[in-house]
Amino acid sequence: MPYQLGRKFKLFTLNSNPELAQEIAKLLGCELGKSSVTRFSDGEIQINIEESVRGDEVYLIQSTSQSGNEHIMELLIMIDALKRASAETINVVIPYYGYARQDRKASSREPITAKLVANMLETAGATRIITMDLHAPQIQGFFDMPVDQLLGGPILAEHFLEKGLEDVIVVAPDNGGLGRARKLANRLDAPIGFLDKRRPEPNESEVINVVGDVKGKNTVIIVDIVDTAATIALAARLLMEEGAKAVYACCTHAVLSGQAIQRLQESPLKELIVTNTIQLPEEKRIPKITILSVAPLLAEAIEHVHNEKPVSPLFE
Amino acid sequence: MPYQLGRKFKLFTLNSNPELAQEIAKLLGCELGKSSVTRFSDGEIQINIEESVRGDEVYLIQSTSQSGNEHIMELLIMIDALKRASAETINVVIPYYGYARQDRKASSREPITAKLVANMLETAGATRIITMDLHAPQIQGFFDMPVDQLLGGPILAEHFLEKGLEDVIVVAPDNGGLGRARKLANRLDAPIGFLDKRRPEPNESEVINVVGDVKGKNTVIIVDIVDTAATIALAARLLMEEGAKAVYACCTHAVLSGQAIQRLQESPLKELIVTNTIQLPEEKRIPKITILSVAPLLAEAIEHVHNEKPVSPLFE
Amino acid sequence: MPYQLGRKFKLFTLNSNPELAQEIAKLLGCELGKSSVTRFSDGEIQINIEESVRGDEVYLIQSTSQSGNEHIMELLIMIDALKRASAETINVVIPYYGYARQDRKASSREPITAKLVANMLETAGATRIITMDLHAPQIQGFFDMPVDQLLGGPILAEHFLEKGLEDVIVVAPDNGGLGRARKLANRLDAPIGFLDKRRPEPNESEVINVVGDVKGKNTVIIVDIVDTAATIALAARLLMEEGAKAVYACCTHAVLSGQAIQRLQESPLKELIVTNTIQLPEEKRIPKITILSVAPLLAEAIEHVHNEKPVSPLFE
Amino acid sequence: MPYQLGRKFKLFTLNSNPELAQEIAKLLGCELGKSSVTRFSDGEIQINIEESVRGDEVYLIQSTSQSGNEHIMELLIMIDALKRASAETINVVIPYYGYARQDRKASSREPITAKLVANMLETAGATRIITMDLHAPQIQGFFDMPVDQLLGGPILAEHFLEKGLEDVIVVAPDNGGLGRARKLANRLDAPIGFLDKRRPEPNESEVINVVGDVKGKNTVIIVDIVDTAATIALAARLLMEEGAKAVYACCTHAVLSGQAIQRLQESPLKELIVTNTIQLPEEKRIPKITILSVAPLLAEAIEHVHNEKPVSPLFE
Amino acid sequence: MPYQLGRKFKLFTLNSNPELAQEIAKLLGCELGKSSVTRFSDGEIQINIEESVRGDEVYLIQSTSQSGNEHIMELLIMIDALKRASAETINVVIPYYGYARQDRKASSREPITAKLVANMLETAGATRIITMDLHAPQIQGFFDMPVDQLLGGPILAEHFLEKGLEDVIVVAPDNGGLGRARKLANRLDAPIGFLDKRRPEPNESEVINVVGDVKGKNTVIIVDIVDTAATIALAARLLMEEGAKAVYACCTHAVLSGQAIQRLQESPLKELIVTNTIQLPEEKRIPKITILSVAPLLAEAIEHVHNEKPVSPLFE
Amino acid sequence: MPYQLGRKFKLFTLNSNPELAQEIAKLLGCELGKSSVTRFSDGEIQINIEESVRGDEVYLIQSTSQSGNEHIMELLIMIDALKRASAETINVVIPYYGYARQDRKASSREPITAKLVANMLETAGATRIITMDLHAPQIQGFFDMPVDQLLGGPILAEHFLEKGLEDVIVVAPDNGGLGRARKLANRLDAPIGFLDKRRPEPNESEVINVVGDVKGKNTVIIVDIVDTAATIALAARLLMEEGAKAVYACCTHAVLSGQAIQRLQESPLKELIVTNTIQLPEEKRIPKITILSVAPLLAEAIEHVHNEKPVSPLFE
Repeated sequence: MPYQLGRKFKLFTLNSNPELAQEIAKLLGCELGKSSVTRFSDGEIQINIEESVRGDEVYLIQSTSQSGNEHIMELLIMIDALKRASAETINVVIPYYGYARQDRKASSREPITAKLVANMLETAGATRIITMDLHAPQIQGFFDMPVDQLLGGPILAEHFLEKGLEDVIVVAPDNGGLGRARKLANRLDAPIGFLDKRRPEPNESEVINVVGDVKGKNTVIIVDIVDTAATIALAARLLMEEGAKAVYACCTHAVLSGQAIQRLQESPLKELIVTNTIQLPEEKRIPKITILSVAPLLAEAIEHVHNEKPVSPLFE
Repeated sequence: MPYQLGRKFKLFTLNSNPELAQEIAKLLGCELGKSSVTRFSDGEIQINIEESVRGDEVYLIQSTSQSGNEHIMELLIMIDALKRASAETINVVIPYYGYARQDRKASSREPITAKLVANMLETAGATRIITMDLHAPQIQGFFDMPVDQLLGGPILAEHFLEKGLEDVIVVAPDNGGLGRARKLANRLDAPIGFLDKRRPEPNESEVINVVGDVKGKNTVIIVDIVDTAATIALAARLLMEEGAKAVYACCTHAVLSGQAIQRLQESPLKELIVTNTIQLPEEKRIPKITILSVAPLLAEAIEHVHNEKPVSPLFE
Repeated sequence: MPYQLGRKFKLFTLNSNPELAQEIAKLLGCELGKSSVTRFSDGEIQINIEESVRGDEVYLIQSTSQSGNEHIMELLIMIDALKRASAETINVVIPYYGYARQDRKASSREPITAKLVANMLETAGATRIITMDLHAPQIQGFFDMPVDQLLGGPILAEHFLEKGLEDVIVVAPDNGGLGRARKLANRLDAPIGFLDKRRPEPNESEVINVVGDVKGKNTVIIVDIVDTAATIALAARLLMEEGAKAVYACCTHAVLSGQAIQRLQESPLKELIVTNTIQLPEEKRIPKITILSVAPLLAEAIEHVHNEKPVSPLFE
Repeated sequence: MPYQLGRKFKLFTLNSNPELAQEIAKLLGCELGKSSVTRFSDGEIQINIEESVRGDEVYLIQSTSQSGNEHIMELLIMIDALKRASAETINVVIPYYGYARQDRKASSREPITAKLVANMLETAGATRIITMDLHAPQIQGFFDMPVDQLLGGPILAEHFLEKGLEDVIVVAPDNGGLGRARKLANRLDAPIGFLDKRRPEPNESEVINVVGDVKGKNTVIIVDIVDTAATIALAARLLMEEGAKAVYACCTHAVLSGQAIQRLQESPLKELIVTNTIQLPEEKRIPKITILSVAPLLAEAIEHVHNEKPVSPLFE
Repeated sequence: MPYQLGRKFKLFTLNSNPELAQEIAKLLGCELGKSSVTRFSDGEIQINIEESVRGDEVYLIQSTSQSGNEHIMELLIMIDALKRASAETINVVIPYYGYARQDRKASSREPITAKLVANMLETAGATRIITMDLHAPQIQGFFDMPVDQLLGGPILAEHFLEKGLEDVIVVAPDNGGLGRARKLANRLDAPIGFLDKRRPEPNESEVINVVGDVKGKNTVIIVDIVDTAATIALAARLLMEEGAKAVYACCTHAVLSGQAIQRLQESPLKELIVTNTIQLPEEKRIPKITILSVAPLLAEAIEHVHNEKPVSPLFE
Repeated sequence: MPYQLGRKFKLFTLNSNPELAQEIAKLLGCELGKSSVTRFSDGEIQINIEESVRGDEVYLIQSTSQSGNEHIMELLIMIDALKRASAETINVVIPYYGYARQDRKASSREPITAKLVANMLETAGATRIITMDLHAPQIQGFFDMPVDQLLGGPILAEHFLEKGLEDVIVVAPDNGGLGRARKLANRLDAPIGFLDKRRPEPNESEVINVVGDVKGKNTVIIVDIVDTAATIALAARLLMEEGAKAVYACCTHAVLSGQAIQRLQESPLKELIVTNTIQLPEEKRIPKITILSVAPLLAEAIEHVHNEKPVSPLFE
């Protein structure tokens, strides 16, 4: 094992993503800290940290994915326990930062829950955040502590490069994701397009135009999050209607809630490539979905942070 | 309606206890503010406040009862929304303050979740707390804003006085609740007793002694919270074995989780008197349970606070 | 004058945009508060507030536009003075929020200056922000106080509708601004396009493709900020080369720094429509630039906030 | 000396308990830091720290016992001085945490002084608290920094075990201290009882019943604090009247204010066992009082904290 | 009574200066709020606020004069009680701000107690400070809330003008108080001088020179605080030796600790004029001391603040 | 090189005083950290830190001298960048602390900008301040972090001692600087005097008296800051008129704004001795001005702080 982590390093996980945590621990050559997070009879969270963390640099892994509220509360309570148990630093590794889509007041009297959660983490006692593909990069600024944001894009791009796809076009399924599409297209040396939603007249139904030439092409849709899969399922259908040769989709965060799996099954989409920032339950691991692991990336990031080496090389 | 609340008063509820909120609104002669708290497909909370709160004195009702984590997150997000929507004050009415039993480090590396929640409420933007029967009164000190704590004891005592029970003894089911038992006993003009748990030798099984004379008496157990009902069911059995004439139990907060209802059904307990600080689902409203409403008390407290009259008379 | 503002209302301006402040004061039917902001011999800022603000609701107008650092310091020092002079609330009206483009760590070891400025405003004592078209809407979440963000888009759209342009296409000059383009296109009932920048091979020069059909069309470029004008000048040239009938550009915030005016003069751009969130010096008010006033919008917003009416109707 | 404390360790004392501090220093094998705390002519506190603390882990010993206000101010001012002198951490050892009995609003418009003092310590710059037997364990939650609470109970129990008392019953002098009595009884393998105060009718005088069988027994009263000694003196008299063989009392914190010594002298109490968390002046060290030292416990706790070993073993 | 104070105004006093508080109340035409501040047997402070303060604008009078630590703690605890009792604002009137001479690190590892006390007041919940003649005006900046500093100088000057003294010179007793001397001299149309302390050679004794011509003059020494009176007693002797006709001294704050009264008695000083910011005990009210009341000034300041009128006219 | 600074030490400079920073780096035997601070086209500050600072103890040199606002903003933004880049500590070396003369409310509704800047530095993330000759020493108390204030006085005194001036008198140019004059006079074994400004009658012009005997003497004026030089130029003229043999002036901070250089040229002042806390532009380095370097003092202070040695010996 090339990693030297020292006596004061401790890695803990909570309940959202134990598989990823195990994989990271293995890559780092360490054991996960002994602790359990259970529920009292009335559903309140009970934390047991079964080894001393006094003076330790603690890394704590938890995605605030479904069910997000439970996972956020687990995280805050664990941070409180670690702080009161005299951990030296509390480095929170949040592969998927939930509530990130509530990052601004889109209409009157809305909360900005992504900021609220950031404030809660600071108040509870977190001293650093390591995360991946924030829905908006501005969420880094919701914190006044160091935030290391890692990117799933290169992992996804690598998959397509290994696949050897030709005649590729990268497509954003709406007008907000063109930046992300451009970055993937750069790695794949491909043009980009997008789907333009428009309501020609009030009371008429919405029309979606494919902007960009997808005819005969291997079309790759990229988003940061696939949640209900409604958008990418619709996009796949439209792109096929426009003559695409095949439609792939990829994302970092596979929320896949509600009817998502059924929609994917029924969609002409050929493959959905995701990462394991969110742990998919067995029943959602359908053949059409390819899961790439972010564990090597996170393990390396943790090691760099712990040994005070720059994290920037991990972005190249 | 005797209450004058003025233009700037707004009363909102969240999802934990809509019946109580409706009852309070009716008593106050006002409508509940228009808002909805729903879930996105992946379970994240979506708040819609459908009327202006700019410059208003908002009162927001939410018990952080089961499922506590969801209800706490609803509450924090609503507070964030109200703060950003320019509410003048945000008065949080928490009839049941969950996680109150995690109010100290009872063993190493435990969180103090009741303090964490207090900190979260302050950070989110709450400006006042109105609550009932905190598990420990010291929890008031977890806040640096005004906390008005109301008491269910007089309501429970009133019930027994109306019943006209004679030969009463009040019993605390463990050695921590004697203060509460003494207060009720004062109102009922009764002696008190308690159950003393003791392990005579290591590896021997625990022995429980009834301290105090219950023979032939109407025995009233008092606790602040009935959760799994294991303690009071056991107490009822022991007290009957000691010759009690009948055993009643009462509490302010009816958590009643897990096997509680079954245990109550099977227990020799004659009646359990609770309040509606926690909204019991239909299936838990069994004949043995009598529910007293705290709505008149809370409505009066809200009116006093809003009109800047002292709340202390409500304690008499 | 329909506005009733009451005794406690005070409107002040600093040095960045006195014309706009005068216009707002006139619309509100009030005088600007007596104050001066001058410089000591060594350039340090000297504030004189020449009337009492004790107990007043103060509205303070200042864009943090060029020279941004001076204007930010003026603003912070004025807020400090108002706070110490016992102003009841300090409502900061920032028509143009500078440093907004530094809203995330785009590469290693970058500051997030837009958050830093938000923190500074909170620490100094601001109690509310009223602003226009934040570069990223997430900047609202950089604050924990109420932020009212107004939009220049409807004002710009109104101009084009009055002009009666036909055969319009709205174009985003890069892949990040399609959302803004879609909103304007909705108001003009038009399709959208964008310019796609791409480097075909490392070491080759960048190629820009026009995505969307602009031939023979009145093309309207929309951005939030025109700074050096390099992007829109280049876009105008490319769009004309692609056969556009005419190219217009519009933005809320006319920074127009460096060679901007010269570039605009030399560009095939027919007209640049801007607002007066930033006060253009005389020499930059060239015929090609049309300036629309945001004073009516800001005046109405101030009146709504002061009289605790919802601001949301101003968005329609 | 088995303790290794390293170059950066510094131990200081203030004026409340120099004997204990000396004893701890001796056990730790270190010198007390050179400093003096004197009074200016008008009574204001003057601190002189006569050696560098730059970068040091400072442990500062001060009970906030009588006169509590002076000792609290000494403590806060010393913390301020240490913080400004660049101490790395400021670990405040408070053997007796004064004002702990004002830990909740018991009636209207009361302060919660125990929280106020906690806030003061945090604001002044303390980074950790080490304390003993808080009047209520919830006071731990008044802090957002690590609090290590040590227990005097085992030390007191050990004394009785060494004494070889037989036929013991442990008695709480009121209904709030039964938990504490149960813990001591467990160590002594004894039953428990308590004194129940009750006012049979309004305007009649209070009656106190001894609940539990004390006849012929060695009765041990336990409380956390003996202040005026009125309660235990009364209890001793009642217990003797009920036929107790002998009455002992014990506590961690010997405040012994007002008429306490005289009451103890005149009482049938055989012995009062206390610890030295509060330094008794010579005139209060009467033969009836046995003082046990907490210095070994505190020294070990300090060493564990400093060397980042778990403190939990000290509870066994 | 010309003052209109309204329903929400409440004036309270603590123990340091009840006479002044009574005088202010009389001038304002109001009663002092009902409250008591007593001591528990062990010296801990017990606060009873005997009337509601919910929603009130509370003005609280307390000098942090001898014994300063007790008076500071009284003040902090009362603020805590008022905050928790829902006072709308807590305006702290501190006629004499103690610890003001510890306003900087004069040597290594000193505290800055004047800042510590400011932080304590802010943390406890004070919302405004009204004070007089801070030892250094920079102490205003120790607060981030509004501070209204009133000046005793005009009151003292008025006394000398009424006296009709001729041939006056104002003298600062050391090199730090010349600014204060100049201001008084301006009002008396007089020249100034000072006493220059100097040690000609190491190990030689200090020499004091009178700088300025005092021969045959009515010499007025001015300082902000007279504490031990050593400085002014020495100055009076030296000035008489230099041929002064008579020596007067004046100050705002009469601390008069230690040997002060004896020194004044024995000194050639003709008169010491002080104000009642600090309440002198009977035995210190010797004929040589003239006490001027600041009650009219403070009453007017309170009325101006409460009715949101500018305080600045009070400085003229 | 005697200094051992270790792996984690990093020294950075910003734009105000690169020469001094270079000199300090050379004395410490280290390189300046690679970074650049430039301006975007619109004047906004762009920071590039070109090497990792993760886990480093960073020392950052910046005087907030002219143009102060730009230099303050540079400093705050750099601190934000360092904090987000995970610097362990951020030690801000501010040789000249600008805005220090706005350290109190001298008249109504003034800001206290020196406190505002202190608050900004704390909020941005600074962890320690090293500075020189604060205009008022109380400014140390504006911070709640450690402040090490170094003194230029000994450097200035040394210059005069080396010069071998005889018959010296030290003069303060107004009544506020006598303390500073006394300290220099002690080192030069000299008497002191001052200039007393006085307006004999309203509407008459101001009269300045020289207090102290300067006839035939080498007169040394000392101030902390020379800004417009109006005061010292006037003082020099008056002192020569009073018969001084020669007039020298000295200060730590040479702001020299506006007409300062011209005034110095035209004044009878023989020499102005300053330090390089502020970097003088070439055109201001006239022969009459002697510049002494504070680099050795600052380098030593940095080394002492970094190696956790007391800084106090540097004051002797």
